[in-house]
Amino acid sequence: MDKQTGYVTRNLLATPIVMGKEVLAVFMAVNKVDASEFSKQDEEVFSKYLSFVSIILKLHHTNYLYNIESRRSQILMWSANKVFEELTDVERQFHKALYTVRTYLNCERYSIGLLDMTKEKEFYDEWPVKLGEVEPYKGPKTPDGREVIFYKIIDYILHGKEEIKVIPTPPTDHWTLVSGLPTYVAENGFICNMLNAPADEYFTFQKGPVDETGWVIKNVLSLPIVNKKEDIVGVATFYNRKDGKPFDEYDEHIAETLTQFLGWSLLNTDTYEKMNKLENRKDIAQEMLMNHTKATPDEIKSILKFKEKLNIDVIEDCEEKQLVTILKEDLPDPRTADLYEFRFSDLPITEHELIKCGLRLFFEINVVEKFKVPVEVLTRWMYTVRKGYRAVTYHNWRHGFNVGQTMFTLLMTGRLKKYYTDLEAFAMLAAAFCHDIDHRGTNNLYQMKSTSPLARLHGSSILERHHLEYSKTLLQDESLNIFQNLNKRQYETVIHLFEVAIIATDLALYFNCLFFRKRTMFQKIVDACEKMETEEEAIKYVTIDPTKKEIIMAMMMTACDLSAITKPWEVQSQVALLVANEFWEQGDLERTVLQQQPIPMMDRNKKDELPKLQVGFIDFVCTFVYKEFSRFHKEITPMLNGLQNNRVEWKSLADEYDEKMKVIEEMKKQEEGNTTEKAVEDSGGGGDDKKSKTCLML
Amino acid sequence: MDKQTGYVTRNLLATPIVMGKEVLAVFMAVNKVDASEFSKQDEEVFSKYLSFVSIILKLHHTNYLYNIESRRSQILMWSANKVFEELTDVERQFHKALYTVRTYLNCERYSIGLLDMTKEKEFYDEWPVKLGEVEPYKGPKTPDGREVIFYKIIDYILHGKEEIKVIPTPPTDHWTLVSGLPTYVAENGFICNMLNAPADEYFTFQKGPVDETGWVIKNVLSLPIVNKKEDIVGVATFYNRKDGKPFDEYDEHIAETLTQFLGWSLLNTDTYEKMNKLENRKDIAQEMLMNHTKATPDEIKSILKFKEKLNIDVIEDCEEKQLVTILKEDLPDPRTADLYEFRFSDLPITEHELIKCGLRLFFEINVVEKFKVPVEVLTRWMYTVRKGYRAVTYHNWRHGFNVGQTMFTLLMTGRLKKYYTDLEAFAMLAAAFCHDIDHRGTNNLYQMKSTSPLARLHGSSILERHHLEYSKTLLQDESLNIFQNLNKRQYETVIHLFEVAIIATDLALYFNCLFFRKRTMFQKIVDACEKMETEEEAIKYVTIDPTKKEIIMAMMMTACDLSAITKPWEVQSQVALLVANEFWEQGDLERTVLQQQPIPMMDRNKKDELPKLQVGFIDFVCTFVYKEFSRFHKEITPMLNGLQNNRVEWKSLADEYDEKMKVIEEMKKQEEGNTTEKAVEDSGGGGDDKKSKTCLML
Repeated sequence: MDKQTGYVTRNLLATPIVMGKEVLAVFMAVNKVDASEFSKQDEEVFSKYLSFVSIILKLHHTNYLYNIESRRSQILMWSANKVFEELTDVERQFHKALYTVRTYLNCERYSIGLLDMTKEKEFYDEWPVKLGEVEPYKGPKTPDGREVIFYKIIDYILHGKEEIKVIPTPPTDHWTLVSGLPTYVAENGFICNMLNAPADEYFTFQKGPVDETGWVIKNVLSLPIVNKKEDIVGVATFYNRKDGKPFDEYDEHIAETLTQFLGWSLLNTDTYEKMNKLENRKDIAQEMLMNHTKATPDEIKSILKFKEKLNIDVIEDCEEKQLVTILKEDLPDPRTADLYEFRFSDLPITEHELIKCGLRLFFEINVVEKFKVPVEVLTRWMYTVRKGYRAVTYHNWRHGFNVGQTMFTLLMTGRLKKYYTDLEAFAMLAAAFCHDIDHRGTNNLYQMKSTSPLARLHGSSILERHHLEYSKTLLQDESLNIFQNLNKRQYETVIHLFEVAIIATDLALYFNCLFFRKRTMFQKIVDACEKMETEEEAIKYVTIDPTKKEIIMAMMMTACDLSAITKPWEVQSQVALLVANEFWEQGDLERTVLQQQPIPMMDRNKKDELPKLQVGFIDFVCTFVYKEFSRFHKEITPMLNGLQNNRVEWKSLADEYDEKMKVIEEMKKQEEGNTTEKAVEDSGGGGDDKKSKTCLML
Repeated sequence: MDKQTGYVTRNLLATPIVMGKEVLAVFMAVNKVDASEFSKQDEEVFSKYLSFVSIILKLHHTNYLYNIESRRSQILMWSANKVFEELTDVERQFHKALYTVRTYLNCERYSIGLLDMTKEKEFYDEWPVKLGEVEPYKGPKTPDGREVIFYKIIDYILHGKEEIKVIPTPPTDHWTLVSGLPTYVAENGFICNMLNAPADEYFTFQKGPVDETGWVIKNVLSLPIVNKKEDIVGVATFYNRKDGKPFDEYDEHIAETLTQFLGWSLLNTDTYEKMNKLENRKDIAQEMLMNHTKATPDEIKSILKFKEKLNIDVIEDCEEKQLVTILKEDLPDPRTADLYEFRFSDLPITEHELIKCGLRLFFEINVVEKFKVPVEVLTRWMYTVRKGYRAVTYHNWRHGFNVGQTMFTLLMTGRLKKYYTDLEAFAMLAAAFCHDIDHRGTNNLYQMKSTSPLARLHGSSILERHHLEYSKTLLQDESLNIFQNLNKRQYETVIHLFEVAIIATDLALYFNCLFFRKRTMFQKIVDACEKMETEEEAIKYVTIDPTKKEIIMAMMMTACDLSAITKPWEVQSQVALLVANEFWEQGDLERTVLQQQPIPMMDRNKKDELPKLQVGFIDFVCTFVYKEFSRFHKEITPMLNGLQNNRVEWKSLADEYDEKMKVIEEMKKQEEGNTTEKAVEDSGGGGDDKKSKTCLML
């Protein structure tokens, strides 16, 4: 200092003012007057005054720090507020946050440059380069190898009249880019603080005013915005601190906080893009699926024969009544086809013919004309439902049809219709046909164990919710919507009944809560009705309460779903094998795919236990259902009779098997007496293994 | 104070110490000694010392505030850091954030209670209530009507040994819940600060130690966590400030910042759930779609007739060679079916028979045996590709087949095969068959205008990217993967060729960049080859450079795609009508669905202009392609000849039409001369309208 000023320092008393580790100032007394050096006493006075000075300095500095931290948390809060407002794209998200925090940034201008994130070029864009016709790109690249291209700049002007300028595909000589600083930051990922921009030698900032406002660049702070994958996504640049001073380390700290937060928040914009993609892919797949499952005009023609006579376009204009007459003639006679009987069997009928039978049932309950269902739509829907069932061993279209037919028979022959309106009966019949649509031949537990997408989507009643959702999706297509001429309230009723009816077919509900824990609910209704003196009274008792109607309907669905067990023995014995085979196929999958030991019911090696399992199933699940229904309406007794007859058959088979087992067991015991020692040596002692070998021997 | 202490205050000098609007302290001097009151001088001394005291107090307070703000921004930064780490569920997200910020919370314990968000119950859960068998819920509810159920509590213990306790489905007498405070907060959404918890009368906090550590509750701060929809999602409760004092307004402020941030961040956990749902739905739809499109065993049997003789299971073990022989015998003879000819026409052949023809072509290029393609897989793939094409007017399976057949003919008859390996030829033939799979009969522009999910997914070459993606999806199913016995590198080559070949069929690329801007690329190759002296030289020139091979292949795809225009006139005239009809159908859709006027090419009302459009199409698009190919390989000249012949035909039709138009125009002029005034009165002056009426007259 002496050299610069010409002053001569002879002696000096100095002390730093320290706050934490930071030196806020140095306090000096220079050249003691009237003495060659400062005395002990001087030092004391000096340090006494120092306390005051230092406290004021500390207060000032603490205040500054408080202000910084306060701005920092405000910036974070406001950015978070905006970022979490909605899921949106990068541009919008950055803009919302950056605009909201503008007052806390303490600068005259700031701008954000967004970088092109494309990593790979289209093959045809690279051809000219590969052929050597075009020079390969040699310009600046981001650390992860992208060409540095700012596809958009948003410029926030806070001095004078506040203004925001959006510059799409900015030219390289735009004032925000011309210095080369943002490109440099995008290339290297450094935070650059230019204390005196005009004097900078490395970057060439525009010296004069950048626009008509006359504003000039004085100092610049530029930072990269980096996502969690460490890719540089954009560059934020701040110009001219409000008080004219250069940006200091605290400004850097605040700006870094902001850019860091924005960088992290890109998780949301990435998610937004991913989600849109997923949604589009889902929509595409669903549209393609509909295109494949919806009955084609040719398929509809195969049912509606008369179309061959008429022109398709003409049909639309036909009188609905006339159409119905024509159609009815084409369909099977319900009486000769046993459609009104509990003993009905689908086995002699083709799957295609069953579609016609299904259609016929809607006519029989007189809902087609009443609810103005266009016959073509009804046919398309019925055919599409049929196509919705997969070709699995048991839960295929035949099962779907049977449940519909039993629902029909319970309503008509079983006289349960009296509790329901025509609309409700319509919904119940339609729901019954749909109730297992797109069944995969494996049960809910298998979905869970294999963590199939279905199980990941639905928390409980997995398949049932899928059947329901599929059924509802079909109705959303107007050309399949058999309920298209209902009013809104009616339509909602139908949808609600679909939900209750289809979800109710989840036997787990039946076991867990629907009836076993609360089996009294259905039983109580039956009890109450038994005591009524007149039919009218019973009808009133039930119909006055929608919940009772729902409970009866849910129980009807169970009765329909299990109805195979009530069929004549020659049918039941065949169908039981289908059910068993589907179970065994699942068992095979469990063994091969999941590498687990299936339960006995699904274990092919225990197929001889089928009769015993059937007896148990009849006793613990079915008997209650059909007994109660027979008590409720004596017209339903044929089902109970069928069930009891089948129990006799299965029991005798089970006894036969037990008898055989007993004989073998005894033979084995005798043999064991002879070769005990050898057996112990040979086997690992697996009792189960031995059992299954025995089964195979039978 | 005097009353309490017995002291007598006679006089008093007092002043507040103020910072901003806040009174930090009051400074008092009481009872002047030796005088009845404080003098002016006393006041001066008093205020002089006050300056010092107040500065120290201010410094202390500012420090406290700085500390608060600093903790606040640390909490925000760390929470943000965790929240944006990954998309995850509520529990994990809250835990990650809450655990990370623990040191900034300055309390002995804190816990978070997560609320059950279920708004509606399952219908079967409500039945007992509706039947009056169970009392309806009367307990506390959140403002949006949910029952207050804490399904999980996470308890953070910071005193003593740091510990985290997770309590799933906590009992109501758990120490965190027993006071009723969290439930109260969940019910009302208030921030509750209990300065002296044990003395509280409204809530009954556990008085003694809450667990074996002996820790007791002293003061409590409890806040709701509210999402942006204003639903209360959880309750955060903080216990015992570290310094023993009660929580003050600044603590409330910090805690509120944290809970607010966590509440906002629920956008991410909601998104996480939505995204999982979407993904599952997409997977479900794609699996269902595959189930519907994949050729069934019956369909495969319809092609592989011999299967009826053999057992399906046996086939897998058959010698591949034997199978091939059997299959070849079943397939059409390529010579009699014209499969080697450019003039080939699919019109006399059924769509089902075309599947067999397609299979045959793979045998003809000898790739089935060479690349160990299981015949059943090849058949399933070919049949599935056929099923992947929709029944649209032009871009259906017949078109797909034709492109495959032309690719085959270009390779074999056109002798372009010599530039490609067997593997490449295999990929090119397969890609050609797939190139328009699942085409919807409308073009890319229509996808964009109707903002179909396809257009939202793909930014450019919309349909082509879809055809490609679909083709690749098929290969991902091992039972459809005709490339299953290739090694990884070979497989990647195939996929790359699929990409180039299928994307290259986007004619817009052809127009924009692929060739018109750089048409020189293909032309240059042809030029260079023309100058070569030997065939070997030309082969070497091309094959040494993968880019040249790609460019030729891309041009081959275009030649295949447009090949209908080179067919004998009786074929071309029929196929051109199919193309035109598909365009007109799109035009109809544009008019009805998009309510836009279609371009002339798609305007049914301008169907008479078809010959003129065809001539233009031949001149501006096709001639270049087939001329260059004929120059490249003279064996391809039949295509150019066909094209030129068709040009003659279309031109004569166009001239005929022009002639007719001229006559009508003259007639109209004559008429106009007579009735000018009347015409002006009648029409709105729409020249276009008149034109189309004229067209209809023809």
